[in-house]
Amino acid sequence: MKIGLIGAGRLGKLHGELLTYHIPEAEIKTVAEIYADDVKGWAKQLRILNLTTDYSDILDDSEIDAVLICSSTDTHAQLIIEAANAGKHIFCEKPIDFNIEKIQHALNSVKAAGVKLQIGFNRRFDHNFKKVREIVESGKVGNVHIVRITSRDPAPPPLEYLKVSGGMFLDMTIHDFDMVRYLSMSEVEEVYAQGAVLIDPAIGNIGDVDTAIITLRFKNGAMGVIDNSRQAVYGYDQRVEVFGSKGYVEVKNDFPNSATLSTVEGVISEKPHYFFLERYKMSYVEELKAFVDAVAKDKEPPVTGNDGLQPVLIGAAALKSLRERRPVKIQEVH
Amino acid sequence: MKIGLIGAGRLGKLHGELLTYHIPEAEIKTVAEIYADDVKGWAKQLRILNLTTDYSDILDDSEIDAVLICSSTDTHAQLIIEAANAGKHIFCEKPIDFNIEKIQHALNSVKAAGVKLQIGFNRRFDHNFKKVREIVESGKVGNVHIVRITSRDPAPPPLEYLKVSGGMFLDMTIHDFDMVRYLSMSEVEEVYAQGAVLIDPAIGNIGDVDTAIITLRFKNGAMGVIDNSRQAVYGYDQRVEVFGSKGYVEVKNDFPNSATLSTVEGVISEKPHYFFLERYKMSYVEELKAFVDAVAKDKEPPVTGNDGLQPVLIGAAALKSLRERRPVKIQEVH
Amino acid sequence: MKIGLIGAGRLGKLHGELLTYHIPEAEIKTVAEIYADDVKGWAKQLRILNLTTDYSDILDDSEIDAVLICSSTDTHAQLIIEAANAGKHIFCEKPIDFNIEKIQHALNSVKAAGVKLQIGFNRRFDHNFKKVREIVESGKVGNVHIVRITSRDPAPPPLEYLKVSGGMFLDMTIHDFDMVRYLSMSEVEEVYAQGAVLIDPAIGNIGDVDTAIITLRFKNGAMGVIDNSRQAVYGYDQRVEVFGSKGYVEVKNDFPNSATLSTVEGVISEKPHYFFLERYKMSYVEELKAFVDAVAKDKEPPVTGNDGLQPVLIGAAALKSLRERRPVKIQEVH
Amino acid sequence: MKIGLIGAGRLGKLHGELLTYHIPEAEIKTVAEIYADDVKGWAKQLRILNLTTDYSDILDDSEIDAVLICSSTDTHAQLIIEAANAGKHIFCEKPIDFNIEKIQHALNSVKAAGVKLQIGFNRRFDHNFKKVREIVESGKVGNVHIVRITSRDPAPPPLEYLKVSGGMFLDMTIHDFDMVRYLSMSEVEEVYAQGAVLIDPAIGNIGDVDTAIITLRFKNGAMGVIDNSRQAVYGYDQRVEVFGSKGYVEVKNDFPNSATLSTVEGVISEKPHYFFLERYKMSYVEELKAFVDAVAKDKEPPVTGNDGLQPVLIGAAALKSLRERRPVKIQEVH
Repeated sequence: MKIGLIGAGRLGKLHGELLTYHIPEAEIKTVAEIYADDVKGWAKQLRILNLTTDYSDILDDSEIDAVLICSSTDTHAQLIIEAANAGKHIFCEKPIDFNIEKIQHALNSVKAAGVKLQIGFNRRFDHNFKKVREIVESGKVGNVHIVRITSRDPAPPPLEYLKVSGGMFLDMTIHDFDMVRYLSMSEVEEVYAQGAVLIDPAIGNIGDVDTAIITLRFKNGAMGVIDNSRQAVYGYDQRVEVFGSKGYVEVKNDFPNSATLSTVEGVISEKPHYFFLERYKMSYVEELKAFVDAVAKDKEPPVTGNDGLQPVLIGAAALKSLRERRPVKIQEVH
Repeated sequence: MKIGLIGAGRLGKLHGELLTYHIPEAEIKTVAEIYADDVKGWAKQLRILNLTTDYSDILDDSEIDAVLICSSTDTHAQLIIEAANAGKHIFCEKPIDFNIEKIQHALNSVKAAGVKLQIGFNRRFDHNFKKVREIVESGKVGNVHIVRITSRDPAPPPLEYLKVSGGMFLDMTIHDFDMVRYLSMSEVEEVYAQGAVLIDPAIGNIGDVDTAIITLRFKNGAMGVIDNSRQAVYGYDQRVEVFGSKGYVEVKNDFPNSATLSTVEGVISEKPHYFFLERYKMSYVEELKAFVDAVAKDKEPPVTGNDGLQPVLIGAAALKSLRERRPVKIQEVH
Repeated sequence: MKIGLIGAGRLGKLHGELLTYHIPEAEIKTVAEIYADDVKGWAKQLRILNLTTDYSDILDDSEIDAVLICSSTDTHAQLIIEAANAGKHIFCEKPIDFNIEKIQHALNSVKAAGVKLQIGFNRRFDHNFKKVREIVESGKVGNVHIVRITSRDPAPPPLEYLKVSGGMFLDMTIHDFDMVRYLSMSEVEEVYAQGAVLIDPAIGNIGDVDTAIITLRFKNGAMGVIDNSRQAVYGYDQRVEVFGSKGYVEVKNDFPNSATLSTVEGVISEKPHYFFLERYKMSYVEELKAFVDAVAKDKEPPVTGNDGLQPVLIGAAALKSLRERRPVKIQEVH
Repeated sequence: MKIGLIGAGRLGKLHGELLTYHIPEAEIKTVAEIYADDVKGWAKQLRILNLTTDYSDILDDSEIDAVLICSSTDTHAQLIIEAANAGKHIFCEKPIDFNIEKIQHALNSVKAAGVKLQIGFNRRFDHNFKKVREIVESGKVGNVHIVRITSRDPAPPPLEYLKVSGGMFLDMTIHDFDMVRYLSMSEVEEVYAQGAVLIDPAIGNIGDVDTAIITLRFKNGAMGVIDNSRQAVYGYDQRVEVFGSKGYVEVKNDFPNSATLSTVEGVISEKPHYFFLERYKMSYVEELKAFVDAVAKDKEPPVTGNDGLQPVLIGAAALKSLRERRPVKIQEVH
């Protein structure tokens, strides 16, 4: 299978390497990157033969079956439309867009073209979260009553990034909005978002929050709560639990090693992974494998366009709730 | 020190035994219990010399320094007033009352009489929660950002009890309202309560909920969230964590033993304690020791009358929030 | 049931208190202690009515059903004989004696008198080790292949004590020799002991070791290994595991609380209990309960005279192995 | 850097793939494999250009800097000699040979030729064991007193393999003999090996054991113990701990995920990895990286020829100890 990579920034390069080294059934034929010169050496090392500044070279290439859209968020919706029109199957990094209409417009194009679309919510493919889902699916916790997520990053992104990121709910919590749908096996009906600026006043100055607690109601009667922080000094803290009528399942963080040292001082062990790639590398591999597999076997991708839309709706409802200081139903923003 | 026990139901008998067997500095001189006949054998076994149906026998006894009020909730406020007027130091089981005015009236009597009052929020004395507080107090987690409590009982009480218990927030969550004050080292300013009936429709029929997620704002800027369930089939589930600018501290549940069995089936270990007394016995001992110590050394008790009032205010705000489906400030119910 | 306590040193006082406060079915009628004056206050506080310097007062008292022998090791054998002859049931602290003949002589008296004898190997009653035994007994690990014990004390006893204690194998490892019989559900056939002086040369100077690894063969084909140290600076370290054809079961240490703090420094949690009493108090309560129960219901005590003899045989074989630097069969010392 | 792979059986293919996908600084130029036809497809997929049945094609190729010797054990020594004579740097899978003279002969050739030799003891590069070593090296456990290793495989290899594998000590425990040197930072002086046939009588019939406990003395005064089993039905069980004057460090097993499910049945979590590759893949990557790095930067490899010799000496002493039922000094077999 031949693939075109659009956007070779940090995430794009990651996808490119992982696909090259871990997925023999597919290969990157062409990379389209505005700053093509910057990635010449990188492309050469991966033995990627074609490098261009114009993504049309990919869309026009009949040899290419699918594209990975890893460019900046503001280009996603348009690229999806064009790629769909060109008959390419599409893997697109999250989010599709911050604007709900634009998202729906892009999804319509995909539907009309009959191509496959997978959204890059990689955490679904993480060994821990995937296992929680399997356990919930198997009925072992019974009817879901409470879904709890703690989701804290080691440090906030630069202010410049935050300004254009859509805010905490659409940049960071969006992963958790996807995760609650994945784990509850239901849809969010209502959101109540409480936020604060506790880490860096500058974040408040640009109209964002850095700490939040978001309560949810699901269609199936269950309830959920997400607590976020932009700064957990000890590392990536992503713990989830699903509690139900038959019990509960939870996962811990991932650690570089399991060494535990006991001295007069106490019992000391390793902090969770601090670096993003250490923590999630395998989930990126698995989501790419799933995409290639869906294309190869003509199956529905495991994370669909609608899965890309719903978290943005929930995020919009959360934003409205935060501002108006009241619970907001999803219908209000859809 | 001579003590009078008012009320020898389940909790009263517990306090009586623990004081007798674990606190040599004090002894129960007299037990007042409406159904005195029922507890004759019990009192004899503990070598308690005096048993009466009339608590005045305790209040009028100048030998008795302090009373333990363990009778039904609806008698607490009145007994506090009478005991204060009789110059007795007072340990009173939670809650003082469901009615805020009655509580304040009782607290005024205590203040006027200059006696000591300690409220029975025993979980503060639990080895795990006490350690969390010490760590927060020591500044090791920095400024508190998020206080998280999971609090689930193994099974709901009988419906008859639920009908007069004040509802989930005043009967069960009241412990957690006290715990968030204890751990955040601040006061609750605002409450948003979301509830559901997921376990037993009969609970809904009497106007109560059995599952809840309650979001809080604290005066010091921190936020908190409590998730409750009346039925965790696997045992008492009480986990707390405090997250701040320097890190976070959490505690796990207590287990009967640490045995872990690894077979082809998987890795299996013990469920948390299922029986209330197994889980909390030592915390009851410690709170009684603290009370006796406060009386003996003329110190302020570690859990004061105001500590008895605040959780009821928070519970009232939670109830209002649940019914009106909006965040409610504490000022609104005080 | 009326009990006589012989010896009110540290362990004797512990047994006295635990029986008084935790076992309503029995009471200490008389305490015999050479330094009776020293324990007057203690006895009074426990409301023990009779205090004597002469243990005959206990043996001659027909009201007394059973005795707790908690005096120094060199008096145990003789006291067992006299108590047996006086028709008293006997609880005796470990070890019965260091000399195998004296032990057998004492056991013969007990047998002849038809009284019950329980030896104070309290760790069998510890919540963790008891659970391991239950799991092994239930067949969940299948045929036992390997029994592993790590057994380390926080600090060595004073040199004066070590000189008369019988050496590491008979003073400290003796608990582990009992534990391997308890957990393997078999008898030790052969011992290979390897020792070293790594903590304090003075321990070597009196002919003892402070660190040891002891390998065992059991009658049922299984093998075992014990590693001992007189000084684990982090606390009482007693971990066991039993590995078999169907899996393995292990237990961890006990900790004062489960608080875990995550900061930039790492993840820090509590050290194991450092104080002997904190760690084992409940096991002492349980062994006394078992003894009182055995006497009251005319059942065989759970830790018999033979259970008191075997570990001394194993210890003797270990000592011989250490000195002769070869494996030694139990038959060689019996 | 150009590398020649000699032997493309299971381990050889693994090394080939890992080097190709994870180590951009080097590439496999030629694969020598007796059954070359069988690996044509495999080599093509990895884009390895040259495939031969004759390893001389590698040794004679001046473009090739280093060789990976992954053929059967009985070819290792000879290949090392020839490769050294051909001036190739050498990575050789363990063991070099079962015969101590052959090993020394091979090591002499390497020394004479001045090439680098690294032996494939991959577990040193495992994230857990490496961390233990770092902690020991840093002095955090103080003087090493006890090194403990539990090392159990999920299932024994086929009998045909066992017959030519050199027996448990040279096939399986050899990893642990290397690990104790790595973790103790000392040399083994004396060995006492106790073995049994508890899993499969057929293993006894070919003169081997399937369960063993091996006690060690180190030059630095420390002691060690290894317990082995050929069949841990729950997965790869490799736990180590190093105990010393300042505390102890231990590691747990690795698990596919951290999901824990709590129900009425108990608390259930995942078994350790069952498949060899899942558990150790990264350690193979890391050892290859270290080899390529040593060659590229002209540094001493982290696992030397002597590191390849010592475990075989310890294994020989263990075998002698097992047969003669006594402790054996290393000098006796060297």
